Amino acid sequence: MRQVIFLIRSEDRKGLLAGISGFFYSRGLNILECRQYTDVLENRYFMRVAVELGPEMTRKELESGFAELAAGLKLTYSVHYQDDVQNVAILVSKTSHCLYDLLMHAEEGSLNGRIMLVIGNHPDLESVADRFRIPFYCCPIEEGKSADQEERVLGLLRHHRIDLVVLARYMRILSDKFISSYPERIINIHHAFLPAFQGGNPYQRAWERGVKMIGATAHYATAELDEGPIIEQDVERITHESGPDQLRERGRDIERRVLTRAVQAHLEHRVIISGRRTIVFGQ
Amino acid sequence: MRQVIFLIRSEDRKGLLAGISGFFYSRGLNILECRQYTDVLENRYFMRVAVELGPEMTRKELESGFAELAAGLKLTYSVHYQDDVQNVAILVSKTSHCLYDLLMHAEEGSLNGRIMLVIGNHPDLESVADRFRIPFYCCPIEEGKSADQEERVLGLLRHHRIDLVVLARYMRILSDKFISSYPERIINIHHAFLPAFQGGNPYQRAWERGVKMIGATAHYATAELDEGPIIEQDVERITHESGPDQLRERGRDIERRVLTRAVQAHLEHRVIISGRRTIVFGQ
Amino acid sequence: MRQVIFLIRSEDRKGLLAGISGFFYSRGLNILECRQYTDVLENRYFMRVAVELGPEMTRKELESGFAELAAGLKLTYSVHYQDDVQNVAILVSKTSHCLYDLLMHAEEGSLNGRIMLVIGNHPDLESVADRFRIPFYCCPIEEGKSADQEERVLGLLRHHRIDLVVLARYMRILSDKFISSYPERIINIHHAFLPAFQGGNPYQRAWERGVKMIGATAHYATAELDEGPIIEQDVERITHESGPDQLRERGRDIERRVLTRAVQAHLEHRVIISGRRTIVFGQ
Amino acid sequence: MRQVIFLIRSEDRKGLLAGISGFFYSRGLNILECRQYTDVLENRYFMRVAVELGPEMTRKELESGFAELAAGLKLTYSVHYQDDVQNVAILVSKTSHCLYDLLMHAEEGSLNGRIMLVIGNHPDLESVADRFRIPFYCCPIEEGKSADQEERVLGLLRHHRIDLVVLARYMRILSDKFISSYPERIINIHHAFLPAFQGGNPYQRAWERGVKMIGATAHYATAELDEGPIIEQDVERITHESGPDQLRERGRDIERRVLTRAVQAHLEHRVIISGRRTIVFGQ
Repeated sequence: MRQVIFLIRSEDRKGLLAGISGFFYSRGLNILECRQYTDVLENRYFMRVAVELGPEMTRKELESGFAELAAGLKLTYSVHYQDDVQNVAILVSKTSHCLYDLLMHAEEGSLNGRIMLVIGNHPDLESVADRFRIPFYCCPIEEGKSADQEERVLGLLRHHRIDLVVLARYMRILSDKFISSYPERIINIHHAFLPAFQGGNPYQRAWERGVKMIGATAHYATAELDEGPIIEQDVERITHESGPDQLRERGRDIERRVLTRAVQAHLEHRVIISGRRTIVFGQ
Repeated sequence: MRQVIFLIRSEDRKGLLAGISGFFYSRGLNILECRQYTDVLENRYFMRVAVELGPEMTRKELESGFAELAAGLKLTYSVHYQDDVQNVAILVSKTSHCLYDLLMHAEEGSLNGRIMLVIGNHPDLESVADRFRIPFYCCPIEEGKSADQEERVLGLLRHHRIDLVVLARYMRILSDKFISSYPERIINIHHAFLPAFQGGNPYQRAWERGVKMIGATAHYATAELDEGPIIEQDVERITHESGPDQLRERGRDIERRVLTRAVQAHLEHRVIISGRRTIVFGQ
Repeated sequence: MRQVIFLIRSEDRKGLLAGISGFFYSRGLNILECRQYTDVLENRYFMRVAVELGPEMTRKELESGFAELAAGLKLTYSVHYQDDVQNVAILVSKTSHCLYDLLMHAEEGSLNGRIMLVIGNHPDLESVADRFRIPFYCCPIEEGKSADQEERVLGLLRHHRIDLVVLARYMRILSDKFISSYPERIINIHHAFLPAFQGGNPYQRAWERGVKMIGATAHYATAELDEGPIIEQDVERITHESGPDQLRERGRDIERRVLTRAVQAHLEHRVIISGRRTIVFGQ
Repeated sequence: MRQVIFLIRSEDRKGLLAGISGFFYSRGLNILECRQYTDVLENRYFMRVAVELGPEMTRKELESGFAELAAGLKLTYSVHYQDDVQNVAILVSKTSHCLYDLLMHAEEGSLNGRIMLVIGNHPDLESVADRFRIPFYCCPIEEGKSADQEERVLGLLRHHRIDLVVLARYMRILSDKFISSYPERIINIHHAFLPAFQGGNPYQRAWERGVKMIGATAHYATAELDEGPIIEQDVERITHESGPDQLRERGRDIERRVLTRAVQAHLEHRVIISGRRTIVFGQ
């Protein structure tokens, strides 16, 4: 028995649920889970259906059947097979905390994907990747030649057939070209509770502003910096006793758990993007 | 247009979603929201469907049609009409904080019900009820005559056709007879994070034990004290600086918000009981 | 026995703690509580000392003694007597939730001050104040005559010898003149997690941005809108299911508890302002 | 400049603060930080003072001076030098998540101690220790010979001059003899929000009870199982959708952060034990 997940978006119309659930029922497929959300303000419909695919039907039969239904109901959708391993690449610079957390969760089996490689624009984290037996590639950026470096990185991603790119405190701004090569498939961690403290040096600015909580935000990278659809956020309460350095340290633990949760949600096919927002169906 | 909500529970079987959604679609009723949960461990299926009922169909037609479907699919269910006002009674003793919070939310229109009366076993909170123009009945308990008092309270509840009884820090243990008169319709607040500190004096015991967080729990009252299905819980971080009195004061704010949220969830027909657990569909 | 609280700020120097604690000890005054914080980045020292003043010493003697010490150690400070009631005014517009919460806490005895009056620029909340037997003054704003209205409000504040002004969702921007009449003594609630969503319509903007948590911020009002020193913040997790209206409703419960906590902290003399930041000593 | 930390407990008496701060001032030592807490219910006084020790005074001079003061004021205390490395041992069984988190934080420099060795009663986690180049000792327990195994473990701890023993999901109950060899120096993580779900299988029981939040508790190990003084707790909100397996997975992230925070607090000399409670001075 294989699990198949459909992520569906559509204009909201009567009969969508009856139509889709009827489709699976009529083919004898068991629905394991079905979640929907209707955005009444924008008249949009979102659905995540997980069904069991037995030996009596091939992927091809299932997909062509569903394609027909989708054409009739005007659905936009994607299909995901639990069996298919998703390949993940992690881009890093010099700080290790998010990288460690992802490697550790992968090792413990709680990441629905395989980390294929780690790419650093600095060599610092090679030893971390080494510890987990993950190939590390150092792609430094020569003055004025960041396009070359991006080409090299893109080459590595293509070579490893990467499905998801995770920016684990990668301290470079990616070009539009790079980002558009992996639409809705690059996840970044910003070390602040967006939209507060967009841009650089958020902990210093948080301290100067005297906020009483700090946070972190994981979002899909888009052409506009720190403006992509948010997947996950979290905060922690701080007091006046924490200076910028303490905030940075406290923040590390928030960043890593926010990024890991966002990556888990994406790899478990629980996220649908809707403009600047995301629908994230709970675990 | 009236909104109708079906709360459904059943053994899990193939075709439930297709069957139920097909029923509404075939009758031209728009599904506003549909949430399901399959408990794979106990093979149980739970569903909350909200549909729009227009002038083209009567309640009776809808209900008799659905009854037929339910018989075929072996569903247990209840039907709730958004139009029908639910009558709420609040039982109190001497502390006002939960009562205030419920009255305030009712006043602000964020409680899907009408508070018909407040009953106290002490006269202390009459002035609070007065402020909000809610009738207050004092039903004191004479030594050894608690059965008589319960009869008087039950009489008031029946007279006001009460749908939900809220124990807002009512410091008496109700008899099985009383509780069985309102099955799954009495909500109690316990001033601790159950199952920690069941029974009396939880803040004192929390302080003695040196816990680092305190909490509160709203649950349906059942024959066994503090053992009913939990609807909502919350906690707050405390430090060594808080003695039992400070915990009590901090706790008041947790208690009131936990109780109010539980009452809101019940009155919005978002709760289904399953043995000792509850399915609470999010707001 | 009366409790006296000293709030002290100073440049950081050796011997401050020894000097101050020695002062109280040599006069036979018992230190109930002493909290300090050294801001090493800005070389500032902050202290809150609570001592017991018995019949053997007058206020005048205590104050003149401490004044001498403070001159020697170059301390800036304020003295507060637990016995002295602090007079509070609440300014409101049309939404009642923060007002209710403050009135309720005052009634329960958990606000270290007396609410003397409620002032609205609209008449809507008169009935709320009435319920708690608090005088309500309606000071509407005539087109182009907001200075006149502010004069009237200031007159009321002076007449009632107000110590703290609470803006409980008062939807008007106060003039610099007004604000400078009550420096460090006006507390405002902003319905967002500052510095995110400064200015108007934060819930709508939070929804559009697709954040996963919403919050509220209580701060001292200063000449720059939403830029004053933050006293308290809190957030709650939301999901994609909440539209702007749901956020507004969820937000109400965050706003009220954040504002009440900030007002409690101020009235308990637990807040010291340091530029754009606050030192808030825990309860 | 070396930092020296004094952890002090005493009966509460007038003049303690003046006496202690006067001591440091008179010797020309700068107080970097001073925190106190008076437990008025039990009339106990607790203090953490951090001072700078320059070249003008030796450890011996400081200690003998303070010993004299302490004898006069009847203080119980301990002295800790920031320079002195604390040796940490981690005991594990088969699950890696807490071990990983501690190793990772040590690697990042946010653990004020050196992990000297990892001891497992099973060989499973040897590879994890290997990755971080930490010696791993497998001390399996032969049927009926747990005393022998404990002797072997104690031998290793003595050999490595261990200051703190961390039970990172070590699934064996330690003997009183073992525990009394490291009084107030063994930290355990319990995978529930104590005192709820003491003993075995807490996630299963949490699911059966239908709680809406799960938690974890780090505490000092004492002769009574799960009854030692609590250092740190945390919880996360769950829904009906999580079965026991999901709780276990969610719980792993709570356990690791709670244990790491408790270990950090202990190693930073921020914890004082007072009977069944702990005073934990904030970071």
